[in-house]
Amino acid sequence: MPIDGRPTLEDVAAYAGVSRSTASRALNDDAYVSVRAREKVLGAARELGYSPNQAARSLVTRRTGAVAVVLSEPEANVLDDPYFASVMHGAFRELSSVGAQMLLMFVDTRDDVPRTIKFLEGGHADGALVFAPHKGDPLPTALRLARIPVVYGGRPGNGKRGTHAVDFDNKAGARLAVEHLFASGRRRIGTVTGMLDHPAAADRLEGWRSALLASGLDPLDMAEAGDFTMASGETATAKLLARCPDLDAVFAASDLMAAGAMKALRASGRRVPDDVAVIGFDDHPTLAPAMEPPLTSIHQDPREQIRQMVRKLIALLNGEDVRPEATILPVTLVVRDSA
Amino acid sequence: MPIDGRPTLEDVAAYAGVSRSTASRALNDDAYVSVRAREKVLGAARELGYSPNQAARSLVTRRTGAVAVVLSEPEANVLDDPYFASVMHGAFRELSSVGAQMLLMFVDTRDDVPRTIKFLEGGHADGALVFAPHKGDPLPTALRLARIPVVYGGRPGNGKRGTHAVDFDNKAGARLAVEHLFASGRRRIGTVTGMLDHPAAADRLEGWRSALLASGLDPLDMAEAGDFTMASGETATAKLLARCPDLDAVFAASDLMAAGAMKALRASGRRVPDDVAVIGFDDHPTLAPAMEPPLTSIHQDPREQIRQMVRKLIALLNGEDVRPEATILPVTLVVRDSA
Repeated sequence: MPIDGRPTLEDVAAYAGVSRSTASRALNDDAYVSVRAREKVLGAARELGYSPNQAARSLVTRRTGAVAVVLSEPEANVLDDPYFASVMHGAFRELSSVGAQMLLMFVDTRDDVPRTIKFLEGGHADGALVFAPHKGDPLPTALRLARIPVVYGGRPGNGKRGTHAVDFDNKAGARLAVEHLFASGRRRIGTVTGMLDHPAAADRLEGWRSALLASGLDPLDMAEAGDFTMASGETATAKLLARCPDLDAVFAASDLMAAGAMKALRASGRRVPDDVAVIGFDDHPTLAPAMEPPLTSIHQDPREQIRQMVRKLIALLNGEDVRPEATILPVTLVVRDSA
Repeated sequence: MPIDGRPTLEDVAAYAGVSRSTASRALNDDAYVSVRAREKVLGAARELGYSPNQAARSLVTRRTGAVAVVLSEPEANVLDDPYFASVMHGAFRELSSVGAQMLLMFVDTRDDVPRTIKFLEGGHADGALVFAPHKGDPLPTALRLARIPVVYGGRPGNGKRGTHAVDFDNKAGARLAVEHLFASGRRRIGTVTGMLDHPAAADRLEGWRSALLASGLDPLDMAEAGDFTMASGETATAKLLARCPDLDAVFAASDLMAAGAMKALRASGRRVPDDVAVIGFDDHPTLAPAMEPPLTSIHQDPREQIRQMVRKLIALLNGEDVRPEATILPVTLVVRDSA
């Protein structure tokens, strides 16, 4: 207690069991404080009879309370892709829970980048959660120059080291798929890849390749490129079948492509999983279990990704010393009937 | 030409065939100018040898170049509803085409309203396109007090007269459906409504009712409430069937509910359209033609709605004298096999 006996901000923070900065932000009704922390701090302030002074208030920086969520993908893909729907759901919920306003922004083509950067530089958002997976996307470089706090979902396609990101362990996911197929006796294991300018797609291909080699199998000629859509999964699988008629398994780098692979297999008269086993990637909650047969897939949790991205961004906004690195989230194999 | 022979802004505008304010905005690289108008103005300036002076530049108000698109609906509905997907697609395209940045904002519950208003009041967006169809939604009143230019998609649920809106002719759509059913010999025409706190749902119910009365039919007991989801269409149709076993037609206030109605009819052993005809509302581009049998539906064009909303908002932003009223867009009947 200070000499005059009045409780200080430090007292309130200690009583509430939070940091001084959290207590300050809660008392100032700033964003980026969880409902729970805010209640604890306000309760502590009431019980201790704390009344904030003007000086303490002025310590709080001027903020908009808004966080941009930037999806740099052709806009048609964004609205059709179940992964981005999960991202939009999750980001809204997570940001709401810390009192922040989500501003969803699409970057459809390179032409949209200057406008997006101008808006973000204008101080209209406190920070950004960015999905910019494609190589050659000018957005990450522009954002770096704009100096606003950014956390990426997945590695940015042209990002340098030193960015804040939350990614999935795509290589390990592909290895899990191949090991499961190998353990169940499959030896001619092909893959349908995503767009290879996309780090997640490149990682899944590399995981598949290294797992085949580790099992003494030959990856030569067993990969075919898709672009994450159902149609591309069908075409690529038909090509694989033409080249390797003895194909006995397909690892598709997305559930939508796995659905396309099943179509191509059926069209060729092959049964899944009897003749050819199929494993997808995403474990899409409505799609994967609804397929015929239900799809074995690599499970990733977009909601957890968003949660960690928000946590990282808030730490950055609060001036904490966050190491610029990619947090890698684990993935798991969910076995259903297709493999 | 002025005395010193140099061309003025007025000359450029006249040469380009646009208004003075459009010419000014095009020369100042402001948003809200179409690509075509911008090119005409820049061409005129080049040909006339016009060089803008500093005074002209300073006439342009300070703008963010951003327009908020606010969807005030439970967020889960927004991301599952094909109408809102069309709205998000369309808004992005239309705003991009006039050089504006779309900021997509969800208002999930009443708790989100103060935060949304605070952001909009903060001058971070020049105006807003708002979908707030539910009665009792506090957003429209809050927006009115915030004094930012707003154009509504559909009538706001608790809007007073004097708002700017672009709506569909929901009553006429329902009448078209009933008249088509009546002309093909149906006499026991039930309806499954949307949430009745929603002006579009109320209008569709009223259109159905007045068309029945005009045809000398009795609407009593022939309406059942749904909530625009497929599941509610199924439940409501089952209730209608229990009450009126001689039902020979269902007008559902959305395509998703029509899909649910078909399920309930099949489950009761009735054939569509032989025993019971079904008409939906939305003419959803992928859903309606893919149903079995393909769905007869009322066609509305969300893209045109957005286009007119953007046009109205730009006129407001440019200080034009726009009458506060609802522009009503026509709808049409698209006949497929279900009715």
